This record gives sequence, structure tokens and C-alpha cells, in this order.
Amino acid sequence: MSRIVEVQRGGGEGALVEDRVAVEEPLEIRVGTEPVVVTMRTPGHDGELAVGLLTTEGVLKDVGDVVSVKHCEAVEAASAGNVLVVELKRGAAVDLAPVRRGFYVSSSCGVCGKASIEQVRWSAEPVSDGFVLDVDVLRSLPGKLRSEQKVFDQTGGLHAAGLFDGDGALLCLREDVGRHNAVDKVIGWSVLAGRWPLDDHVLMVSGRSSFEILQKALKARVPVVAAVSAASSLAVELAEAGNQTLVGFLRGEEMTVYCGGERIRHGGT
Amino acid sequence: MSRIVEVQRGGGEGALVEDRVAVEEPLEIRVGTEPVVVTMRTPGHDGELAVGLLTTEGVLKDVGDVVSVKHCEAVEAASAGNVLVVELKRGAAVDLAPVRRGFYVSSSCGVCGKASIEQVRWSAEPVSDGFVLDVDVLRSLPGKLRSEQKVFDQTGGLHAAGLFDGDGALLCLREDVGRHNAVDKVIGWSVLAGRWPLDDHVLMVSGRSSFEILQKALKARVPVVAAVSAASSLAVELAEAGNQTLVGFLRGEEMTVYCGGERIRHGGT
Repeated sequence: MSRIVEVQRGGGEGALVEDRVAVEEPLEIRVGTEPVVVTMRTPGHDGELAVGLLTTEGVLKDVGDVVSVKHCEAVEAASAGNVLVVELKRGAAVDLAPVRRGFYVSSSCGVCGKASIEQVRWSAEPVSDGFVLDVDVLRSLPGKLRSEQKVFDQTGGLHAAGLFDGDGALLCLREDVGRHNAVDKVIGWSVLAGRWPLDDHVLMVSGRSSFEILQKALKARVPVVAAVSAASSLAVELAEAGNQTLVGFLRGEEMTVYCGGERIRHGGT
Repeated sequence: MSRIVEVQRGGGEGALVEDRVAVEEPLEIRVGTEPVVVTMRTPGHDGELAVGLLTTEGVLKDVGDVVSVKHCEAVEAASAGNVLVVELKRGAAVDLAPVRRGFYVSSSCGVCGKASIEQVRWSAEPVSDGFVLDVDVLRSLPGKLRSEQKVFDQTGGLHAAGLFDGDGALLCLREDVGRHNAVDKVIGWSVLAGRWPLDDHVLMVSGRSSFEILQKALKARVPVVAAVSAASSLAVELAEAGNQTLVGFLRGEEMTVYCGGERIRHGGT
């Protein structure tokens, strides 16, 4: 989703010309009547974003509990489209602590990489072995991702996340000003499409991989995470702890395999 | 700050080689004994990060109220270095609502771009006219920023923010896995260095400009914000509302001026 603005080229001289920018607006996500979080996002696929975020952040315990997802109509005109209500089954288990803990940790909570990893592991099992990906399939993913980044083409201003199957087919691609939102939208899509969990899938992101991206992938049980750019230290540590394959700088024939190289098959064997 | 990890090149074949990744660890920021926020950051310049974040998010009302900033020593060994305590003057005005509002908006709060901009404007005056920058100085900034990105050179995995004066001299550059952290560190540096507010300065970021970046710049009264990549729609709207100059895609001779072009001087006049 992009919007036209008037800009000047070459340093502010000359006439105004039209340009396109990626749209960024806040979205408030409510579970029933309870406001849970506000995230700055690119409008579009809001339902997927909400379901993905609630799932990957551990708020939602059972993805089958979602009854409906719709924009709130009882808001001021200025907020129309920016408040989303997720209705769950009666008695559905919800834990708001994970979302809140991220921002307002209690003083009794250890704050270190190790503690963060333990916390994630405690709520998500390591992914299983078994899934194997051909190295040529892996190399084909950046081109497929890039060719479908429609809004990036217009604006140069969006992150993308793509979900692929083991044969390298692109199942879902989402773009957003926030890279975590793009990942949440893809994962939310898989939940709403009944394709869950994602044991036999590859998640690819257009930028860097951080703790946050790996955490979300682990919750969705994604065995292989690939990124166009670098990984952070905590991303590598979490991928190792979660038995995931993490690949960075995936460009052309090049790649850096941080861990889990045994899932990458060579020479067509 | 980077860390050595063992990786495989070319798709998981062959021997392990050493590589460097940018370090990412959580930092808990406390005001006195009160935990305020946890942010994933690259360790280093934590005091600047804390003071910058508390300032730009509106928690701290008067930057002169900071008495001391130091790492908490009364934490478990695993968390050592990851808990920072900001001590303020007795009776210092503190407002934790802005930080919390960002994540848990009350249901009475309008959620739309316009409301967000009004909220920022309410707590930060538009920047003043008067500051003018030579277009050639502006064009020189990306090269200066890039040449000082030491950790990026090692890892390819960090955002950078740089603060420049009106002659294009680089005053402070900070790198971080989070681009908002890099901006907070630079602004925190200016507070601790007594160079505040930043009316005659230029803030440059290595990536994209979003609402969050412009919000922080406006709090610091920065008149010119430049970015290597694109701006989002809300970044443009906030820059216009705040009377700021916003430049994107600043590369070589090229640039896109989204607003405030009258601060850019041409032809040495």
C-alpha cells in the first residue's frame, strides 16, 4: 500500500513531482474489548497481522480459538480501519503477559540473552529434524521474493517476508514498514489458511534476522529461516537453541550458514 | 560491538570458518527502582541510549534532571551489564504514560495517523526556521556516515545514526541492531554532552525514515532529517506538521526532498 506525495529531486530545486511512499499507520489490536497492543504498520492484511502477532507473541494458546477478526466500526471516523477486533471462543486461554513482559519486565526477571532464550524455549519446543532443502532451491528464494515485492518496487520503502514450501514454491508474501509485521502477516496467513504449524516450510526475510524474527519463526515451528542480510548474535543463539537452520547473506551463489547446515542438501543427493 | 561465530559458506558444505555478527542483547532501563522499558540493543553507549530514549519518548520532562546513569550491580551475573539505572533529581517530573501509551493505548484514544501526529505535536513544538544547509554539505553526509560505520564493516548487520553540524562535521555516530536505538544513542549523547536542544543540527540515518525516527528528531528539535533510503507516509506527515526538512534516498548527487526544501541552499548563495 503506497500513497502519492509531492517531492523535489536533486536537493530541493525545481518543480514538485509526484512520488510514492509506503503507507505507515498505527493499528490497535483488541482481543474482545481488551486493547492489547498498538503497532505501526502498513495497512492491508490487518487480520493476518493480528492473528500472527497474537500467535507468535504467545498471547493466543490455541490458534483454533479464533472465531472472527474484523475492523471495529464503533470508532471515530479518523480511526476507521485502524482498530481491529479479534473474537475468540468462549473460555479461550489468553496470556497477555508475554506482550507486556517484552516492554515492562518485572524486576525479578533476568535480563540477559540467556534468560530471553530460556523464556522462548520454555514456551516453544525446538523444531524437529527431518526437513531437508536442496541448496539450489535455497538459492532460488531471493529472486522469487524480490520479484513479488510490488510495493517495494513503487516506494523502495518496505520490508518483505515470504513463506516457501520445501520445493521453493512461494506460498505467501507480505510487505510492511515493520519487518516483524511482515513476518506476523505471513504467519497469520498460515494460521487463517489452516496451514499450521509450519514444520515443512522456509521463512525468508528481505532484511536482517534478529532475535524477534527467530522467536516468531520458532513459535510457528519453521525449520529454516533465510535472510538477505546479516544475523544478530541473539538470532544465532536462538536458532541454535531451537534446532533451526539460519542462513544469512543469501544472494546469488553466496550464503552464510550460521547453524543447522545439515538441513541443506547438496548435489541433488 | 561484534562477536565471533563459526559459520559455513556456500550452502553448508565444507569447513567451519569464523565470522562476525553484531551483538544483540536486551537492556532493561530503570528510573530509580522503577523498570520502564526493555529494548533489544547492541551493548555499548547504554547510558546514552537510556537518556536518549527517556527524552525522546517524553518520559523525562527536563534533561537537566539526570543525576547519574549507571549499570545496576545488584543483578544476577547472567544479567550483568544489561540493567541500567537512571537516577533523577528529587522531585523531577517523570511521565511514564507516553512509553506505555505506545503499546497499550486506552480504548478512548483515537488510533489513526492524525491522532498520533497530534499527540506528538501536543508535546513538541514545531522546529523554528532559520537553519540553512548547503546542498553540497548535505551530499557529503552519506560518505562521512558510511566511513565511520566500524561495526557494520565487520558484520554488515547494524543501523547507524549520525549527528552533524551545519558545516557537515560529524559530531557523533552510533550503531545498533535497532535503528531507533541508534537515534536514541546519538540524541542521548547530545543531552549528556550539554549540546541540547539540536536546533542547528542534521540527523542522518543509514536506513529508512519512519514515524518513530521523526518523532524522536522532533523532540530533540532537529530541523533536518536525512536518510539513505525511503520515508514512510507518516514520516512525511509528521515532518510537515513539525516544520522539519525531510530528505530521503540521499546517495551521490541524488536525493528526494519530501518537505522543507527551503532549508537547502544552492549555488553557494
